[in-house]
Order: sequence, then C-alpha cells, then structure tokens
Amino acid sequence: MKADLLYEGKAKRVYRAEGKPGQLVLSYKNDATAFNGEKKAQFDGKGRLNNEISSKIFTSLHSKGVETHFIERLNETEQLVHQTEIIPLEVVVRNIAAGSITKRLGFREKTLFEPPLVELFYKNDDLGDPLINDDHAKLLSDITDLELKQVKEKALLVNERLTTLFASMGIKLVDFKLEFGRKADGNIVLSDEISPDTCRLWDLETEQKLDKDVFRQGTGNLIEVYEEILKRLEGQS
Amino acid sequence: MKADLLYEGKAKRVYRAEGKPGQLVLSYKNDATAFNGEKKAQFDGKGRLNNEISSKIFTSLHSKGVETHFIERLNETEQLVHQTEIIPLEVVVRNIAAGSITKRLGFREKTLFEPPLVELFYKNDDLGDPLINDDHAKLLSDITDLELKQVKEKALLVNERLTTLFASMGIKLVDFKLEFGRKADGNIVLSDEISPDTCRLWDLETEQKLDKDVFRQGTGNLIEVYEEILKRLEGQS
Repeated sequence: MKADLLYEGKAKRVYRAEGKPGQLVLSYKNDATAFNGEKKAQFDGKGRLNNEISSKIFTSLHSKGVETHFIERLNETEQLVHQTEIIPLEVVVRNIAAGSITKRLGFREKTLFEPPLVELFYKNDDLGDPLINDDHAKLLSDITDLELKQVKEKALLVNERLTTLFASMGIKLVDFKLEFGRKADGNIVLSDEISPDTCRLWDLETEQKLDKDVFRQGTGNLIEVYEEILKRLEGQS
Repeated sequence: MKADLLYEGKAKRVYRAEGKPGQLVLSYKNDATAFNGEKKAQFDGKGRLNNEISSKIFTSLHSKGVETHFIERLNETEQLVHQTEIIPLEVVVRNIAAGSITKRLGFREKTLFEPPLVELFYKNDDLGDPLINDDHAKLLSDITDLELKQVKEKALLVNERLTTLFASMGIKLVDFKLEFGRKADGNIVLSDEISPDTCRLWDLETEQKLDKDVFRQGTGNLIEVYEEILKRLEGQS
C-alpha cells in the first residue's frame, strides 16, 4: 500500500498511499528521542503501541465530533491518513505545570492552569522549536488570524475531550502537543499523532508517569507504561 | 532631595523623593551591562547622558500626548518621576530584525516588520527575562486582558512617536524595550527609561549603530555614540 517515502521524522515515516491520491501512510518507528534529539533509543514494540494508541484516540475524538486527519489503522505499525499541509506550529495545551515550563518560567511543578494554558512553538529543529507568540506565528507560517483562533479553539476542545477520556481510564491529562494541517478544502484538522510520546499522562491515584517522561528521565520502562495506556484504552472501547 | 534607597538596578538607583509622597528620584549610573549582566563596564558620563537623553525623550512624548512617569530632570544624573507599581513585563517593539530575534527565530538581520512586532518578556533575571505569550503574562503578573491590550496599544503609539522623532534626527528606530507601571489612580503609564541602553538606533544614511550594541559587540565608543544621540536630540528642541 506504501508508495514513495515523503518524509522521515524522529518517530514516524510518511509515505504516499499507493492508488489513493490525497492519502498518506504513517509508519510508526520504534525510535524514542528526547531533548530535541539529544537522547535517543529504540524500543521493540513502541511503533506498534503508538500506532494502536493513536488510532484509538483519533477514533474516540471522531466519535466526539473532533475532525482529524486519521482514516484507519492498516496494520500493526501503520495507519492511513488524509494528506494535509502541515502548519509549522506545535500547539501545547497545559492543565498542570510539568516539564519545560517549570524551568523556563519558574512555575512550581503541579501548578494548576485554570483555564488551561495554550502555548505555540515554532516547529524548527535547528532553532530548538522555540516558544513564539501569535504575531510570530503569523510571520513564521502563513496562518491567518482566523485560523490561529480556530487552532486554539480546536486545541482546547481536544483538551476537553481527552481529559474526559483519560479521566475515565484513571489518568490525569497533564499536557500535550498537537499539530494541525490544512486539508485540500482548506479546512484545518488535527494531524500528526496523539500518544504517550506527545502527552504527559499521570495515574490519577498514584501520579505514576505513564508517558515518555519515563524515558526522558530514565525512571521506568517505556514499553510497560505504553502497554498500560493501551490496556486502559482497550478497557474503554 | 533623595531619601532612602528603594532599589538598585543595573543602570539606575531608585530613591524615595524627600517630602514628595508618591514621587521617586531616579539616579542614572555609569554602569553598562549586556547579555543579562554577563558583560559589564563603567563609562564616565554615561549616567549624565542617559539622564539627559531620557528626559528629552519623555518631554517629547508628553508634547505628543503620551503619558509617562517623568516629572522633571533634577540635575546631571537624576530625574524626578511619579512612583508607579511596575508591571514585571518588558515590552519590546521591533521595526527591523536585529539582535536576539535573529538567533532565536531565524529572521534575517534587517527583515522589516510591517506592522511592527510586539514581544513580551517576563522581567526576571534568574530566568533570563524569557519571552512569554499573553496568557503567560496574565499568569505571571496581575495584568488584566484590558490592561494588556492598553499596554500593547501604548507601545505601538510610542513607536509611532519615536519613529518620527528619530527620523527627524536622521536615525532609524530599529527596536526598543519599554516598561509600564500603574499610577496610584490605576492608570498605566510608561515607566523606566528610554535611551540608547534600551533602543537600537541606526544612522539613516550609514546604518552606523548609535546605541548600546557598540558595547555589546565591542565595535565602538559608547560615550561618543551616546553624545551623538544627545547632540541630535538637542538639535530638535
């Protein structure tokens, strides 16, 4: 089903879908990276787990009225998606302070953000994906004022939907990163992936970390915690 | 006229004004610092020059309807100002790309920003005065949505007024940093200083740097270029 490789990222390869114009195959890799690629490792089964987790989360979002680029899971490590023109922004939604924001702005870990905090980062590895403001976003991408407003609204809607989903699995959604793209009709939809690579997920009771922080911080077994997320998601469906 | 020292910053000391409740004496020092205090030096005459330059600029802004904390110049190195409750934000307005933004976001030096770009930084030496967005500003200071809108409008108005003033002196206003404070009546006014310490100023013809960049980059004589700014300002009044 895969035709030519279009792009290889840190965690996925992107192929044109054979005989399906406007569609792509995302192939999830076993690579884990952190700190802008400075820390790297491979984990057997990670690609399969993120493909399954991301597919389930996209399916859940669809059932709750959130449009995404996802079409279907094809096999263990691949999924079919609509091709979108990726907007070079990372949109981060934070419910609880953790990670970079505690160092960058001095927020105490676990500070609650009510309402949730939305941050934009310029997707540019050479610059280290720097934080930007709305005016930078308009200069550095071709996003319009209206689209930027839509992107933030969609990010907050996704936050509501995912917070509910994860709460039903006994998990706190601490923060997460989204990317958006334009479909052929110009509509902006959620693209990329949603997985423990892109979310901070803490057990509601124990606050155990169930996400890539176990790899970043070297505090746990990545495959075990990703399996735990998949198991809890399967309990939901 | 000075009573107790309230605060000593990198470039100024702030005293309570004897017998004048609600007023302060700003005493300009000869110190120059750059790169968040990592590079330091003293320049005889710098305090006097910045006090004179800043006083002339505030007086010019007053004549053009922009309210500031400035009351009067008292002597060579001191000026009297209204006490304000400083909002811990640095508001940067950029007309032309120079300095940190070229490294941080990859803008080519001399890129024109039309409309001018407004950036907010959190005034916090320990954190290195990081860039923030509007939502951070509301969390990190007690600024309201309305006040933030006013601050940005005032910053752009100051930019218009100063661009005109400097153009009449044969100078391009490249960028500058402002700070704002609340007066006793709650009104937000321009505070701090406006000087070649806080502005990038390029000769219109030669693009010679007439600001603190000559010290940052070690490319010229700080006192000579500050004297040039004062001389051109005196030619205006």
